[in-house]
Amino acid sequence: MRHDLNSEEYRELQIRYRNWGRWGAEDEIGTANLVGPETVARAVGLVRLGKVYSLALPLDRNGPQTGKGLTGRSNIQHYMARDGGDIAAAAGDEPQFDGTDDLVQLYLQAGTQWDALAHAFYDNRMYNGRPTTDVTSAGAARNAVTGLVDRALGRGVLLDVPRNEGVEWLEPGRAIDTADLERCADQQGVEIGPGDFVLVRTGQLAQVRARGAWEDYAGGPAPGLSVDAAHFFCSRDVAAVAGDTWGLEVRPPEGDLVAPVHVLLMVNAGIHIGEMWDMEELAGDCAAEGCYEFLVVAPPLNITGAVGSPVTPLAIR
Amino acid sequence: MRHDLNSEEYRELQIRYRNWGRWGAEDEIGTANLVGPETVARAVGLVRLGKVYSLALPLDRNGPQTGKGLTGRSNIQHYMARDGGDIAAAAGDEPQFDGTDDLVQLYLQAGTQWDALAHAFYDNRMYNGRPTTDVTSAGAARNAVTGLVDRALGRGVLLDVPRNEGVEWLEPGRAIDTADLERCADQQGVEIGPGDFVLVRTGQLAQVRARGAWEDYAGGPAPGLSVDAAHFFCSRDVAAVAGDTWGLEVRPPEGDLVAPVHVLLMVNAGIHIGEMWDMEELAGDCAAEGCYEFLVVAPPLNITGAVGSPVTPLAIR
Amino acid sequence: MRHDLNSEEYRELQIRYRNWGRWGAEDEIGTANLVGPETVARAVGLVRLGKVYSLALPLDRNGPQTGKGLTGRSNIQHYMARDGGDIAAAAGDEPQFDGTDDLVQLYLQAGTQWDALAHAFYDNRMYNGRPTTDVTSAGAARNAVTGLVDRALGRGVLLDVPRNEGVEWLEPGRAIDTADLERCADQQGVEIGPGDFVLVRTGQLAQVRARGAWEDYAGGPAPGLSVDAAHFFCSRDVAAVAGDTWGLEVRPPEGDLVAPVHVLLMVNAGIHIGEMWDMEELAGDCAAEGCYEFLVVAPPLNITGAVGSPVTPLAIR
Amino acid sequence: MRHDLNSEEYRELQIRYRNWGRWGAEDEIGTANLVGPETVARAVGLVRLGKVYSLALPLDRNGPQTGKGLTGRSNIQHYMARDGGDIAAAAGDEPQFDGTDDLVQLYLQAGTQWDALAHAFYDNRMYNGRPTTDVTSAGAARNAVTGLVDRALGRGVLLDVPRNEGVEWLEPGRAIDTADLERCADQQGVEIGPGDFVLVRTGQLAQVRARGAWEDYAGGPAPGLSVDAAHFFCSRDVAAVAGDTWGLEVRPPEGDLVAPVHVLLMVNAGIHIGEMWDMEELAGDCAAEGCYEFLVVAPPLNITGAVGSPVTPLAIR
Repeated sequence: MRHDLNSEEYRELQIRYRNWGRWGAEDEIGTANLVGPETVARAVGLVRLGKVYSLALPLDRNGPQTGKGLTGRSNIQHYMARDGGDIAAAAGDEPQFDGTDDLVQLYLQAGTQWDALAHAFYDNRMYNGRPTTDVTSAGAARNAVTGLVDRALGRGVLLDVPRNEGVEWLEPGRAIDTADLERCADQQGVEIGPGDFVLVRTGQLAQVRARGAWEDYAGGPAPGLSVDAAHFFCSRDVAAVAGDTWGLEVRPPEGDLVAPVHVLLMVNAGIHIGEMWDMEELAGDCAAEGCYEFLVVAPPLNITGAVGSPVTPLAIR
Repeated sequence: MRHDLNSEEYRELQIRYRNWGRWGAEDEIGTANLVGPETVARAVGLVRLGKVYSLALPLDRNGPQTGKGLTGRSNIQHYMARDGGDIAAAAGDEPQFDGTDDLVQLYLQAGTQWDALAHAFYDNRMYNGRPTTDVTSAGAARNAVTGLVDRALGRGVLLDVPRNEGVEWLEPGRAIDTADLERCADQQGVEIGPGDFVLVRTGQLAQVRARGAWEDYAGGPAPGLSVDAAHFFCSRDVAAVAGDTWGLEVRPPEGDLVAPVHVLLMVNAGIHIGEMWDMEELAGDCAAEGCYEFLVVAPPLNITGAVGSPVTPLAIR
Repeated sequence: MRHDLNSEEYRELQIRYRNWGRWGAEDEIGTANLVGPETVARAVGLVRLGKVYSLALPLDRNGPQTGKGLTGRSNIQHYMARDGGDIAAAAGDEPQFDGTDDLVQLYLQAGTQWDALAHAFYDNRMYNGRPTTDVTSAGAARNAVTGLVDRALGRGVLLDVPRNEGVEWLEPGRAIDTADLERCADQQGVEIGPGDFVLVRTGQLAQVRARGAWEDYAGGPAPGLSVDAAHFFCSRDVAAVAGDTWGLEVRPPEGDLVAPVHVLLMVNAGIHIGEMWDMEELAGDCAAEGCYEFLVVAPPLNITGAVGSPVTPLAIR
Repeated sequence: MRHDLNSEEYRELQIRYRNWGRWGAEDEIGTANLVGPETVARAVGLVRLGKVYSLALPLDRNGPQTGKGLTGRSNIQHYMARDGGDIAAAAGDEPQFDGTDDLVQLYLQAGTQWDALAHAFYDNRMYNGRPTTDVTSAGAARNAVTGLVDRALGRGVLLDVPRNEGVEWLEPGRAIDTADLERCADQQGVEIGPGDFVLVRTGQLAQVRARGAWEDYAGGPAPGLSVDAAHFFCSRDVAAVAGDTWGLEVRPPEGDLVAPVHVLLMVNAGIHIGEMWDMEELAGDCAAEGCYEFLVVAPPLNITGAVGSPVTPLAIR
């Protein structure tokens, strides 16, 4: 259900879930602080089958980006610095070793990705109250994605909203609120708690595949989280929330609020957000077994000062 | 010890360890075929502490690459498509959400990385006998790094050669052969078998840090594997071998052989190679506890046609 | 008029206009050899008004490229390495100098451009009979665009085909042949000779502006040169031919021939080709004055090994 | 001679030569307004021989940039999107056309270049009093290099300071002041006036070639203009000043002033600056003939919002 908060309600919600200072004035990782040896060890214990799922979309020119729109992001561009043709051209009479080499131009948030806490600002502040001057052309001096390199693993829980509601996918514009999430968790028989990595499926990737075209997947209308869903995640102190859409949030947005879930989760609560995680195969197997929890391991690249990172999230059941 | 094979011995070795066709004519991943639910489940069982180590060097302009030399690789270049200054400049009277965005130019093998099997050629052939025409400017049609996205995890074993020999690091030019590796494994009390991910430490990163400069770490003299080490890894059917140097192999090379370990492991046996994995902290803790095995999870980016990938390898003890 | 040559006729035409060896076996610039002090001095003498026209389209993300299609070229991407926000953030109490800095990713043929002779191959040969192994991932060892840096100037002649035919623009698919060009030159009262830079206007940019959208300008149907037009240019020994469309040639192509004008002019005769030159303002003034000749100055960037170059061609009347 | 102004003298100089508002509040090109049909027609009349000189350094990986230092600029990186190897690999039985394609990553000020007026700020203001918020990650909204596309031509005058002083090159640290420039112009027998393009030779490129290495050419000590040279150029209303060094100004700087010539010429007077123009061959011929004036044509790329541009300046005598 869609929720349309007025500015006072929105402000109140931000203050309620604000974790600034909770882990000290110098903290840069928010609820990822709740990931630690105990949560990791427990999460590892969830693995029963040894079955591994990559949740990464292919990174290539056939991706969802258009180079236009809100962000102007383009799909990855991959170039060969040395390819087989070069090797053949350089080959002499004697057999020899030779190697290929390649490079990319990559918008860090072009495909399956993590948002760093340095990605999201509200009123010129990011998580822990930091100012815009902390993110210059030289990158993020604070709240960069590197804080997550050894913290992006733990108990994963899939909330498969469309399957729980008996549909293939949620339609664009459909907002998922706390009541929806609680109902889904209840019916799936899972509880969610501190340090968890929650994967919220909308099924939009199933819709994309059914129609055989990305169309406006990147930046267009989408099902996704309502501002109201912040209650669900913030009160449970999850480490991160990942979705299968471009921006996690419902689009078009509810009322006048721009990216309120980003504001509540990232700016205020310090909860990391993952986007465009492909949960389709995982979701099928979770449903078949009636088990929605697993180990998730999703380390970002260790790019100094980055405000996002491509990732190959693994779910291991 | 350094070994200098003549061309007949080298040819014989290539044939002995050649796995072409072993997993079918269409196979693209070599011994990563030996990674499966059983090896993963067993590897997960090695986790006792929940302690996580990132083995990724920082990806930034202070990296080891020079833009010159054998490969001409430069360090990652990171640009902001939208930064805090833009957000401040665009801010209106009403508080609002705004987001930063960034992108990189990245040589896929510039830092901590995987070589895909499509990286290595000998006599115009790569793993499974594939020709140079399989790697064009459009990327690798076969043997790309994407074959590893859900296979790059399992039992990790660290072979800490310098510590085993009582030195801080091995000097450049020092070749590690099968006898060295067997002695190290014996003294550490570990056995290595099919589907394992073996991390061979030379300590060169400790040396780099002690001198405070990369100098010619990327492409210069280095300690590393002797051609003779192929016996150790190929006969044990390991899934992958990772080192802490630029190229895994001893440099300058032994005799006339160019990258013979790449040729034997990658081209012939189909064993993936990791380079520039930072094992320093992990090695200290392994030694302190006398335990050298752990879960390793190191999924590459899912870049279609890539011949390498940056990676944030995690070791979990 | 469209012409559909059979393979024998096509082969005969290639041989007839082949200039391989004409300026020696080492030559890399073809008919640009006909540009020299005399032609330059004469061309300078054409300037009467001192009026300058830039024929360059804007280079930005709103350009015609789509990142898809035949070439996969994307529009230029422009990034700030240091912008005003950075300067403001770094400003101290004392007034001081500070500087902005920027960079681009640029497909060399994405906008108004020159094709180098190393761009065009037929039967695995480029101009002067050179093989494919002369253009590797390291760039063009021969026939690169750098040969043109001090030769891309001389007498420019505009052939305004649509205006001569009394229409605003030629429709896509309309082929311009030698008879059309001769008629146009006659009615405009100009003759064309050795070392000239001929600008052929189709008016497609006027059509693009009238409809307010690039649509398939880059790679879609277009008016342009017929294979038959090769007679006109090759027999006159022009230095270069530039058009106002994506690819100079009529599209869809005539019969089975793929880019026959590129093959005849570039591969065989060694005549350089310019594309996407914006002649609209220039054409208006030429018509108003009844004078179609001028000085053209269009030096490419001096990029070692490049097979094309962006350019800001100037016409000076 | 080196000059060390105190802050009051510096401030006074800025005000004296400030052209803000002179061509209206909307002006973005400063003294390039003085380039027009008359100056162009007169400059064209200087051409006697038809001899053409490219003043562009090669743009390749062997350029002067290091990726480090003040600006972090790296040399151009050139990649093939389609090369000869690809063409050979794709070739079928029938002879056919095929084309190569390439792209670059290019710092716009990495080689022979123009600074746009949007490059230089003092006290958070650029030419015509514009604020830092006019240059965001989206580029320069004002004072971009595109204002110069049809204005970067006119009468060129070479001031060959070392030759006039009887030396091969000026040593790093040598400051060229107004007295030096006047003496040089007098002895060369040239006068300089409104709308001229003045090329100041220090000979540092001759020194680089003599030693066979760039060393710290990009950003290290260099001969160049003294703050005092502003009198010479500003009082004469020149259109632009170009040098043969990395930054035009003497380095190390005079006293506490950072880039005072950039501040006086660009920020205040609106005079464009060219850098790394290679005048060596031109200078030799000018001296041999005793004639130091010529036509210069140097259009920047038409990159929307760019704060600099690579250029192939042509001098035509």
